[in-house]
Amino acid sequence: MTYSAPVDEQRFVLTHIARIGEIGADPRFSAASEDMVDAIVEGAAAFAEGEYAPLLRSGDTVGARWDNGVVTMPEGFRAAYRAFVDNGWGTLAGPVAFGGQGLPFSLATVVMEDLGTANMGFSLVNMLTPGAIESLVAHGSQEQQATWLPRLITGEWPGTMNLTEPQAGSDVGAIRTTATQAPDGTWRVKGQKIFITFGEHDLADNIVHLVLARTPGAPQGTKGLSLFLVPKYRLDEAGEPGVRNDVHCVSIEHKLGIHASPTCVMSYGDNDDCIGELVGAEGAGIRAMFTMMNNARINVGNQGVQVAERATQLAIAYARDRIQSPSADGTSGKASVAIIEHPDVRRMLLRMKAQTQAVRALLYYAAGQVDRAHMGDAAAKARVDLVTPLVKAHGTDIGCEVASLGVQVHGGMGFIEETGAAQHYRDARITPIYEGTNGIQTADLVGRKLTGDGGAALRALLTDIHAEIDNEPTLVALADAVEQIAAWMLNEASVNDRLAGSYSFLTMVATLTCGWLMARQAAVATALSAKDEGNLTFLKAKIAAARFYLDQIVPEAIGLRAAALAGSAPLYALTAEELAA
Amino acid sequence: MTYSAPVDEQRFVLTHIARIGEIGADPRFSAASEDMVDAIVEGAAAFAEGEYAPLLRSGDTVGARWDNGVVTMPEGFRAAYRAFVDNGWGTLAGPVAFGGQGLPFSLATVVMEDLGTANMGFSLVNMLTPGAIESLVAHGSQEQQATWLPRLITGEWPGTMNLTEPQAGSDVGAIRTTATQAPDGTWRVKGQKIFITFGEHDLADNIVHLVLARTPGAPQGTKGLSLFLVPKYRLDEAGEPGVRNDVHCVSIEHKLGIHASPTCVMSYGDNDDCIGELVGAEGAGIRAMFTMMNNARINVGNQGVQVAERATQLAIAYARDRIQSPSADGTSGKASVAIIEHPDVRRMLLRMKAQTQAVRALLYYAAGQVDRAHMGDAAAKARVDLVTPLVKAHGTDIGCEVASLGVQVHGGMGFIEETGAAQHYRDARITPIYEGTNGIQTADLVGRKLTGDGGAALRALLTDIHAEIDNEPTLVALADAVEQIAAWMLNEASVNDRLAGSYSFLTMVATLTCGWLMARQAAVATALSAKDEGNLTFLKAKIAAARFYLDQIVPEAIGLRAAALAGSAPLYALTAEELAA
Repeated sequence: MTYSAPVDEQRFVLTHIARIGEIGADPRFSAASEDMVDAIVEGAAAFAEGEYAPLLRSGDTVGARWDNGVVTMPEGFRAAYRAFVDNGWGTLAGPVAFGGQGLPFSLATVVMEDLGTANMGFSLVNMLTPGAIESLVAHGSQEQQATWLPRLITGEWPGTMNLTEPQAGSDVGAIRTTATQAPDGTWRVKGQKIFITFGEHDLADNIVHLVLARTPGAPQGTKGLSLFLVPKYRLDEAGEPGVRNDVHCVSIEHKLGIHASPTCVMSYGDNDDCIGELVGAEGAGIRAMFTMMNNARINVGNQGVQVAERATQLAIAYARDRIQSPSADGTSGKASVAIIEHPDVRRMLLRMKAQTQAVRALLYYAAGQVDRAHMGDAAAKARVDLVTPLVKAHGTDIGCEVASLGVQVHGGMGFIEETGAAQHYRDARITPIYEGTNGIQTADLVGRKLTGDGGAALRALLTDIHAEIDNEPTLVALADAVEQIAAWMLNEASVNDRLAGSYSFLTMVATLTCGWLMARQAAVATALSAKDEGNLTFLKAKIAAARFYLDQIVPEAIGLRAAALAGSAPLYALTAEELAA
Repeated sequence: MTYSAPVDEQRFVLTHIARIGEIGADPRFSAASEDMVDAIVEGAAAFAEGEYAPLLRSGDTVGARWDNGVVTMPEGFRAAYRAFVDNGWGTLAGPVAFGGQGLPFSLATVVMEDLGTANMGFSLVNMLTPGAIESLVAHGSQEQQATWLPRLITGEWPGTMNLTEPQAGSDVGAIRTTATQAPDGTWRVKGQKIFITFGEHDLADNIVHLVLARTPGAPQGTKGLSLFLVPKYRLDEAGEPGVRNDVHCVSIEHKLGIHASPTCVMSYGDNDDCIGELVGAEGAGIRAMFTMMNNARINVGNQGVQVAERATQLAIAYARDRIQSPSADGTSGKASVAIIEHPDVRRMLLRMKAQTQAVRALLYYAAGQVDRAHMGDAAAKARVDLVTPLVKAHGTDIGCEVASLGVQVHGGMGFIEETGAAQHYRDARITPIYEGTNGIQTADLVGRKLTGDGGAALRALLTDIHAEIDNEPTLVALADAVEQIAAWMLNEASVNDRLAGSYSFLTMVATLTCGWLMARQAAVATALSAKDEGNLTFLKAKIAAARFYLDQIVPEAIGLRAAALAGSAPLYALTAEELAA
């Protein structure tokens, strides 16, 4: 079964959660008229359904292939990527000065969602380039911007992010790749990077690598890192790809999922001839990296929504089709019914729908705040910082949960690869890991985001939430629990205590935020239905999903309070040796 | 990294949860002396570590292969299976009259656990034969027993279970395979079965298929089913495999995991020459099937324990080895530490350990009750019936959860297949599906097991639990919630209401039972430590895992109360069409 973009849902959440109307009313985003929003929501749906979705299976079964340094994508991928470039989908949120359309990130989020729901592995190539664009916009010289941005923005030359090395995963400061300046002022990059997504491929005529490296005499740790731009092909005098640079793909990984995304081991400067350009100041690499990762974490949270949406569509279709056993309450007599009629299958499907909608609301909300931050709203900037780890960690956890439920709905067929449910279960599993493991996100939440400002950003969020949840007792109870834990973390807990409870706390804050946004949607849908406005079936389904979330899922999160408050002592009751014994 | 059987843990749980001493004191199991128990726990560990564990990777990467009806196992599998047979591991729990050792199921459970932890996919061949043995013991003629049991018991000829057909999965009554009696009194079986585990392979010289089929004029549904024994090779006059029977493996499935286990499409009677023997009376097939599945569901719950144990061992080893970042509380200065020292990694590992121990306790408890039922204890028989769905559904859910945490602990390496964590994540995913999906288990719990006896079996369990949990407030609260839900289900809820809450309810009852058994173990460990008896490190670790379970995991289950009590109305607020819209 193929993918059908949930355009009614996307428009509804854009309108009532991202509040795209307010964003489009700002001069910064004046291009985002209502007509333009509609055109993009519908156009992205058609493009993703038509070009990316048909390649889902071959992306998995054939996958990216490595041979002697060359990475070949399965048939059809280059053409589909070319269509992405030609149709201008890459230019959406790019700066107008360099050929972008200057549209809101909220809209780019919808496009990203469609591409990834259609083909998550493939869409990674579209997901990384924005980070390269952002870091050049923020830190590049005028010449670098003029040279690289136009082709990055169209996607003609996709970008990559090169951070990880074998000894430097979550610990970015342990990077050993070096860059040394040649007499002519250019830099020579040397070292090996691992886990480089789309580090090499045949989709485009050049690839723009952004590489974190250490310069001679630089201090240890993150402060000694600088950012370098390393093209696969150096540009000739006409600005076109010319001589091959000394950067090579040594191998690609054999992975659990996202086989359409080559995960590369990249070697820089094997022959001491890898020319790079310094981006920004020497030693400012870590700042540039955070710029690159700014929205990347939100985009990975988006992947949670994507895989959840696709898994849900597949499971619902199967459950309507598969006939098995009469209904338990006798209403079908001896006649077998579609399994969607059986209560526990219903429960799984409604849970999948509710969880997917909840994290989509959280995602669009975050994206809307990104746009408001760009509009100069300082409170929105603080809000983005606070909710980014929620979107990334909770969005991806839900992606995994929903994909697993999708397998279960299929019964024995779910375990058979040809059915497709298993691919989502495999693909989803990378999302809680990359772009900062979910443990890194939870540490970010209770560290920089909570204690970093003495709890101010969280208090502001809770104030907004409280203003809308009076009628929802489960949310009030969850908000109380969140406040209690936050107070304990801020006033009593040690750093290890906070970290010990961070995972439970993040899930609670994320569920509270999702619940708030679901409650708002239910209220809007109820009001619209009463006025007989809009797609009444959609509104009815929205209310049912929201009620399921508020009445049945939110209480689960309250059950995490004890773990959030347990402190670190239970974790260190045993030494590492005793734990292993 | 290879597998190291947790023999201290196994002995402790056998002693204090299965209470194997009481079982060995019964004349029925007099062979289970303390020495014998020790010998088996240690022998099975050595055998599984030495013979099965080394084949884990090739079972996954090479896997079972089909070519023109012949299924070939990877190198080494036939020899390992031969060693299983020669060392008599198959004979453990078999009846003495036919060459078995007549030992308790509790002990067979430990052996099964070791084999499956070493190599889950491969060990399926050992898991299915006991069902065939049980059904012949219960329903076979004297001649059938004399002919087939000795070779089934040694494992020389493994058994299979043939239920599923394309239109008959959870709905067994929809089976269409037929059996017609020939003039000479023998039966001809004809039809196609799917999802037949180890339906064909090269491990042994014969295979004994037990096949559910419909006889001419039989009523529709399950009442019209009879059980047939269909050998791959008919026996010659000397009782040895002779002429090939008309049964063939048409293909094997391409699956998400357990690649070492061929999942076969089996065709019976393509040439109208598939000879079978009727086992038991005509029309009594469904009873015989339940006999086959009796302990099979417990054995699948065992697989949850297996995959959880293996994933935990792998994750702990990695976390001790992988150095990344200084400790957050500053105690390591600038020096990076092994990630096992970081709080959130600790949390994952301790959770993995606690959950694994909890479902192992539940498993061994159930196995001990099976033995007591065989000793004639009617209450134990009711207890087995009650806890079987808990072991199957909750054990396998935990297997999946722990395997997923195992991937997460590995970070990026977890997504790389060569690391091995991903295999457990893939292998685990079948266990909530086969041998009755977990949805079937939850329906069984709230149907036959709860309302079937007016709640008597559950009340008896709660009485036993209450006698030991006074000091554990989380368990008291969970028990209260379980009682409240059970009362609602028995007195107010409709059948659909019960089914709507069945999944949450099962998780709550299982967690309560696990918590009870963990609390008991903590109490025993505390008492033994105080007397300086036993392995003090093991006892300390046991107490830490139990406390984590009681203080942090049990409260999560209380969070499921709202969903358990929500009733079915929220699930049917939408029609199937509206849910799909």
